[in-house]
Amino acid sequence: MIAQRDAEAAGADVYDFARALFPLPRSLTGNGVRETLRLVDELVPLEVTEVPTGTSIYDWTAPAEWNISGAWIADGGGRRIADYADSNLHVVGYSKPIRTRLRGQELLEHLHSLPDEPDRIPYRTAYWADTWGFCVSDRQRAEIVPEGEYDVVIDATLEDGSLTYGEAVLKGESDEEVLLSTYVCHPSLANDNVSGIAVLAVLGRELAGRPLRRTHRLLFSPGTLGPLAWLSRNSGRLERIQAGLVVACVGDDGPLRYKRSRAGDTVVARAAAHVLPHRSPDATVHDFVPWGGDERQFCSPGFDLPVGALTRTPHGLFPEYHSSADDLDLITRESLGDSLSAVLELLEVLERNRTYASRSPYGEPQLGRRGLYREVSAGVPNADETFQRALLWVLNQADGSHSLLETAERAELPFAVVSAAADALVEAGLLE
Amino acid sequence: MIAQRDAEAAGADVYDFARALFPLPRSLTGNGVRETLRLVDELVPLEVTEVPTGTSIYDWTAPAEWNISGAWIADGGGRRIADYADSNLHVVGYSKPIRTRLRGQELLEHLHSLPDEPDRIPYRTAYWADTWGFCVSDRQRAEIVPEGEYDVVIDATLEDGSLTYGEAVLKGESDEEVLLSTYVCHPSLANDNVSGIAVLAVLGRELAGRPLRRTHRLLFSPGTLGPLAWLSRNSGRLERIQAGLVVACVGDDGPLRYKRSRAGDTVVARAAAHVLPHRSPDATVHDFVPWGGDERQFCSPGFDLPVGALTRTPHGLFPEYHSSADDLDLITRESLGDSLSAVLELLEVLERNRTYASRSPYGEPQLGRRGLYREVSAGVPNADETFQRALLWVLNQADGSHSLLETAERAELPFAVVSAAADALVEAGLLE
Amino acid sequence: MIAQRDAEAAGADVYDFARALFPLPRSLTGNGVRETLRLVDELVPLEVTEVPTGTSIYDWTAPAEWNISGAWIADGGGRRIADYADSNLHVVGYSKPIRTRLRGQELLEHLHSLPDEPDRIPYRTAYWADTWGFCVSDRQRAEIVPEGEYDVVIDATLEDGSLTYGEAVLKGESDEEVLLSTYVCHPSLANDNVSGIAVLAVLGRELAGRPLRRTHRLLFSPGTLGPLAWLSRNSGRLERIQAGLVVACVGDDGPLRYKRSRAGDTVVARAAAHVLPHRSPDATVHDFVPWGGDERQFCSPGFDLPVGALTRTPHGLFPEYHSSADDLDLITRESLGDSLSAVLELLEVLERNRTYASRSPYGEPQLGRRGLYREVSAGVPNADETFQRALLWVLNQADGSHSLLETAERAELPFAVVSAAADALVEAGLLE
Repeated sequence: MIAQRDAEAAGADVYDFARALFPLPRSLTGNGVRETLRLVDELVPLEVTEVPTGTSIYDWTAPAEWNISGAWIADGGGRRIADYADSNLHVVGYSKPIRTRLRGQELLEHLHSLPDEPDRIPYRTAYWADTWGFCVSDRQRAEIVPEGEYDVVIDATLEDGSLTYGEAVLKGESDEEVLLSTYVCHPSLANDNVSGIAVLAVLGRELAGRPLRRTHRLLFSPGTLGPLAWLSRNSGRLERIQAGLVVACVGDDGPLRYKRSRAGDTVVARAAAHVLPHRSPDATVHDFVPWGGDERQFCSPGFDLPVGALTRTPHGLFPEYHSSADDLDLITRESLGDSLSAVLELLEVLERNRTYASRSPYGEPQLGRRGLYREVSAGVPNADETFQRALLWVLNQADGSHSLLETAERAELPFAVVSAAADALVEAGLLE
Repeated sequence: MIAQRDAEAAGADVYDFARALFPLPRSLTGNGVRETLRLVDELVPLEVTEVPTGTSIYDWTAPAEWNISGAWIADGGGRRIADYADSNLHVVGYSKPIRTRLRGQELLEHLHSLPDEPDRIPYRTAYWADTWGFCVSDRQRAEIVPEGEYDVVIDATLEDGSLTYGEAVLKGESDEEVLLSTYVCHPSLANDNVSGIAVLAVLGRELAGRPLRRTHRLLFSPGTLGPLAWLSRNSGRLERIQAGLVVACVGDDGPLRYKRSRAGDTVVARAAAHVLPHRSPDATVHDFVPWGGDERQFCSPGFDLPVGALTRTPHGLFPEYHSSADDLDLITRESLGDSLSAVLELLEVLERNRTYASRSPYGEPQLGRRGLYREVSAGVPNADETFQRALLWVLNQADGSHSLLETAERAELPFAVVSAAADALVEAGLLE
Repeated sequence: MIAQRDAEAAGADVYDFARALFPLPRSLTGNGVRETLRLVDELVPLEVTEVPTGTSIYDWTAPAEWNISGAWIADGGGRRIADYADSNLHVVGYSKPIRTRLRGQELLEHLHSLPDEPDRIPYRTAYWADTWGFCVSDRQRAEIVPEGEYDVVIDATLEDGSLTYGEAVLKGESDEEVLLSTYVCHPSLANDNVSGIAVLAVLGRELAGRPLRRTHRLLFSPGTLGPLAWLSRNSGRLERIQAGLVVACVGDDGPLRYKRSRAGDTVVARAAAHVLPHRSPDATVHDFVPWGGDERQFCSPGFDLPVGALTRTPHGLFPEYHSSADDLDLITRESLGDSLSAVLELLEVLERNRTYASRSPYGEPQLGRRGLYREVSAGVPNADETFQRALLWVLNQADGSHSLLETAERAELPFAVVSAAADALVEAGLLE
């Protein structure tokens, strides 16, 4: 159904889109998120939802909306030591507005830096604290003299507004859904998570207009609260979700990594465990842990949805994580294209995975008269006769209880070969 | 119950019988099969069934009966290049009769040879194709000149008749059955499968007249259609089959190899996994695959019987497979005898495997007053006191849900010791 | 609840108590057992039960009571070759009284020695045989001249009396019980089992007076018949036993070793498998075997209780086993203290192991406003932020079906950290 695109060409598209997304000032709320969704909507049409400030979202409440137009620290001589115009990482997310002059001593308490990486600006947020702060390189911090006086400006608003998320719904033949989710709340961090937004947006463009068996839903929302807001508004329809995937941190050059959902042995986990090792020997499959990305929400005990996570090097495990070093040089066209291709392949397995019953379950049916067996037989099919082996496996397992994916696992054959064999057997009237 | 015979002496009997079976012109049907069954009947009495041509057998139909009295290729000078009298492999099985003169060019299209093994004649069949052909060594094939003229004769009949199979039924105390099956459709191929026929025939002779708990049924039938014909005529009684084994390719000097049935964790599989490693560290146990011998039919999804397969080097995995190199030099007395002994041991485990309940389940019973414990105790039984350990294990596991085989597995003790301990405990009135 | 004591100080207490217990002439019955229980009662109050001779105990009968006041072998010149006053191992347990003169030839048939260890006196019993015997060093045995005459005296009584056991019941909030058992029937053998008696007695002193969730029962009884007598008198209340442990052979310098109960996957087994490797990389966990200590009775098929066994080097596996070399030099303060500490830690896991349900199961609750999350977030918790990780794991698994121990296992975090996280979440109103 879904053809695999040339990873390099697709990767160039994803990279170009990531470059366009990179500078936008995303946060938990605000216009940076809206502008991000507007760009995604150019690739795949989005329904956008605004959740008003103060709305109850399970244990949480939709926060005030935060927007920022500028911020800086200047020394007594008016020289700007750090300026939001240079990097939107400079201001701690959700800092309250401020315009003041204060002593270096006091200013230092509001600064975050990375002593071990003196050139990098860290990324910090304080969504739920009534505070403000700047993130600076350790070299910038070193310029602050405790006894000096500094002008500090954060030109931000923190007011009633809304939390914004968008979703693309690609209708399939059935109401069953495959959910793909990524988060849009990080400002200029390339791998975490401009990469995820760009891969899902291009994926949406690829899927749109194709015939789909299941409905595919792509959710672009701010981390934690976005999925929870979506879940709270769709709580009666969650049983539709047959499989899901949080896609994030997919642009660096690390190997692909699938993280199982809380429930573990789900069809998406089995599909990932089947697909990834065929793609690369370095790919890994990991058990669920309750930290990382938005799979934490989908996999909380009240939902326990079959939603895993696909990353390359994940949150916290690449040294550039949550710092200005997570920039456009960290992500590559090749990795982005490979990630897109892997998601497409995984979705293809989910789409083509069916459970058949043989119409001829008593003994082996006569394949020869159906053109499915060599006319003059030399005996057992060789290991390289994978299609012949797949025919026998599909027939043998077609008792109405084994899916094609389970058959591929037991047969140790690529899913595509098993699926093609099933198609041939359906064509020959041997499966239903 | 079944004593283990000396493998060497038994092996000589099996080899002698294999030598007698070797030259017969077996095929899917015909007099070669009937003559084979007649020889087997001299060792163990057989009921023979004839299934008329045209009979429906699930997805198949009993084919016309094929008999052949001679065949040859001669060059213009009358010199015979290949002659059925020299090897019954020379004619593709089920070749239609022909008597004609044709050009070398055309003849070559009807020849099968093995370019990598120029001295070997391959074995080929074309049961379901309206065609004819010769199997020749590649050296013979090289003698054919495209522009030459050749006389070709296949003096065969392909007419209404029947498909023939035979079965030996060795009655036991119960109607529960153990099924042993082998195929009789290959002409002069020694390991595949004169070896299987000879081992089962001598096994039948060994079992006949012995007291048996379960009924043992030995099926000698042409591959694929033979088991299917038997299954179709016994479909209402298949639940009697408690365990089964396809025995084939058991004469070469490779290690024993058990292939699990489709269902996998059956009592025969557990017995094999217990018995084989005790016999030889090289023996292996493999998962089911839907190719190989007649286990394919017994393990099709409509039947899914607990029938595994015992071979030495199996179908397709020895280099002489399906060629004239699979001759009497490939099989040995020692391997044949060891195979027979292994089947006997496996059957003995199945026969003696029972599930007991302790009559004294509350605490350890007092073994001393029943003569089952050393009078003056030095404490824990040593690892070499296997009988003492087996007594304790059998008592401990005798809760009506663990079989002796399961107890032997958990105890990591040979089944024979565990079974003897159970006998002693039954004798002492401690088990029921 | 139960604090872990300094192993060295506790070990000194245990060792001193073991030294007091060591010389007492324990056997299956008799005053040596009563005096042992009297010493234990000084540490933890015991209820003592006397089971009259002749009482039916499942497959057994309470035997005559055996008491011994002296015994010796003297040569013709009156020189004592072996004297019970030197070692209570010298007389085979339950030897009938004798006072006779006989030839060396005949005496030798009543002597037990260890030819490979000529200086050691073996330990032997003959509870159920109408016989007598001496255990001597092989050097002593060599002094016996076949033609010589010897005076032999065993000044013992074997008369109606009773079998004695004691139990300490430490009441908890609930009627659910944790059973700890050890055997008191061995005379002067230090590791087997003065060590077990001493560890359990000091453990009882530690637990007494502490608040306990479950009732803890400590059983001190003669091996085999003691537990069976207790079981027969408590058979209607066995379902109260949630977990149990036979503690024996815990004084030598081998690593700790937990032996699973027959049922295997019980909470005590999981607790041991969690606790022991954290304590020492040499600690091991073994499957049940039906020999060893009193776990044999608790784990017989009619009871099948969740009672495992904790030892250091177990019965039969240390070279000094059942000989005079199992003396006070074989056990150490350090090992005894470590064993006590391990039991305490294991009991603490059992006491604190609960199964919670989250009050906020839909998504992650907002930990920040409850003071359970860093105010300014840097993202994913590091591997050394075990408390933060434990909070997330407990919340994620708190669906009313996973215990804290199971959560600790899945999280690969120490139970104590997981338990502390659960306490904090209960405090914050997030768990019930």
